[in-house]
Amino acid sequence: MLVNGKHGDLISTRDRGLLYGDGVFRTLRTSGGQALQWPLHYQKLQNDCALLGISCPDFSLLSAELGELLKIHPNSVMKLIVTRGTGNRGYAPSPLVEVTRIWEASRLPEYPADWAKKGIRTRWCQLRLAQQPRLAGIKHLNRLENVLAAGEWEDKDIAEGLLMDASGNVIEGTRSNLFLVKHGKLVTPDLSRCGVAGVQRDRVIEWAKRQHMPVQVRDVSQDDILQADELFLVNSIMALWPIRELGTKHWSAFPISAEIQQSLEGAAG
Amino acid sequence: MLVNGKHGDLISTRDRGLLYGDGVFRTLRTSGGQALQWPLHYQKLQNDCALLGISCPDFSLLSAELGELLKIHPNSVMKLIVTRGTGNRGYAPSPLVEVTRIWEASRLPEYPADWAKKGIRTRWCQLRLAQQPRLAGIKHLNRLENVLAAGEWEDKDIAEGLLMDASGNVIEGTRSNLFLVKHGKLVTPDLSRCGVAGVQRDRVIEWAKRQHMPVQVRDVSQDDILQADELFLVNSIMALWPIRELGTKHWSAFPISAEIQQSLEGAAG
Repeated sequence: MLVNGKHGDLISTRDRGLLYGDGVFRTLRTSGGQALQWPLHYQKLQNDCALLGISCPDFSLLSAELGELLKIHPNSVMKLIVTRGTGNRGYAPSPLVEVTRIWEASRLPEYPADWAKKGIRTRWCQLRLAQQPRLAGIKHLNRLENVLAAGEWEDKDIAEGLLMDASGNVIEGTRSNLFLVKHGKLVTPDLSRCGVAGVQRDRVIEWAKRQHMPVQVRDVSQDDILQADELFLVNSIMALWPIRELGTKHWSAFPISAEIQQSLEGAAG
Repeated sequence: MLVNGKHGDLISTRDRGLLYGDGVFRTLRTSGGQALQWPLHYQKLQNDCALLGISCPDFSLLSAELGELLKIHPNSVMKLIVTRGTGNRGYAPSPLVEVTRIWEASRLPEYPADWAKKGIRTRWCQLRLAQQPRLAGIKHLNRLENVLAAGEWEDKDIAEGLLMDASGNVIEGTRSNLFLVKHGKLVTPDLSRCGVAGVQRDRVIEWAKRQHMPVQVRDVSQDDILQADELFLVNSIMALWPIRELGTKHWSAFPISAEIQQSLEGAAG
């Protein structure tokens, strides 16, 4: 654990990350002493900080801190939090405050081996995501919706829940981005009103473009989902999981998902 | 400062309050060694915790901690944060985790003396509040909307900004609840889709009922605001501020606001 470059696992109770969720984060995977897709994660961090008016720490500073942690945690989940720092009382941000940087390594989760190959069981979440264009796409620290959604089920065999927004558009999983395959084309939900746009989502879109496979970013209905040829979820820790079950609906073949999965993992480092 | 009953101003970087904004808070005023409206604040805390499935600390425990702080900070702003505690990685809450209690006292803000008597200048915020019925009314730690809204202006003479939701309903101030007076009746925005329902808002509604003054809790339009006879804002620190200016619109007489203000302050302890 590093807090502002020093080993430790405590922060001030006056940190705006705690007081208001006033910050952003990244979750990445380290493997064999490498941080997978670190430059892409940094780009996202920088973009998210800019959207919130938070001064993003330099790439060189964060890379040095990450390098130090990689020696101790070569195969782990690495979380980076950047908050607007500690400040005076009140919501209005002060431009003079130094941001807070928090790195935390934790053990890789042990998912059942067949989830990546045979697909996962999923369910619909009851909670509907609110539409807030000013925060959409950003991986910020206001995650109560995700907490409530993830708390809707206890069955450990259900790997993920799918979320809709208030208008009934399907948006994402509680901790993952969603893709559909239909007639050899890719579709992924538009995240301009809610949701988190992850690094793996961008990588899948880039992969499709390189393959000249059409990819649509658009509103997705429940019907689109139920009529998809394949469905899969992505994030930086699980990489790619096909969906084999969603409520009463089943899928059994995932040829395109498997191809994308191989490509993501092949280029993982 | 008290963290889980001990003097200190640090919390774990694994606290869900930081990671997800997974907690609630209260801001109250202490005066002459008394915490104003503490039982009402506790009721709200308990209600908000229940809505998020957080186990609320006992009234006796929190009252004892507050009593200790009141000896040191008899006239202050007292903030209480209750988070879901530290837990395993992942959004899903673990029921076994102990909640975190954080008390923080700070100096009372020095507002210009005439704001309470002659009214304040306000403006419209551009940010629109998202509609999320599952979180509406709750004073939770996901406050990025308030941060962005409060960051929209720098002019210190503008005391507060008014927020609308995505449908154009007027909801609240960035840190206060809003009331309108029209033809001797009170109106305050419905907070079932967004906004924070504060203790002072309840007190004003109770006051009106005792006075047999009609009070409506309903959707409020911009037109309602501009045609109001009086407008005022309330919270536990400022108590009550009439609005004398909103954009280009001016108000100069606040007889009912003044009456409610006196009543709130008279019964303050």
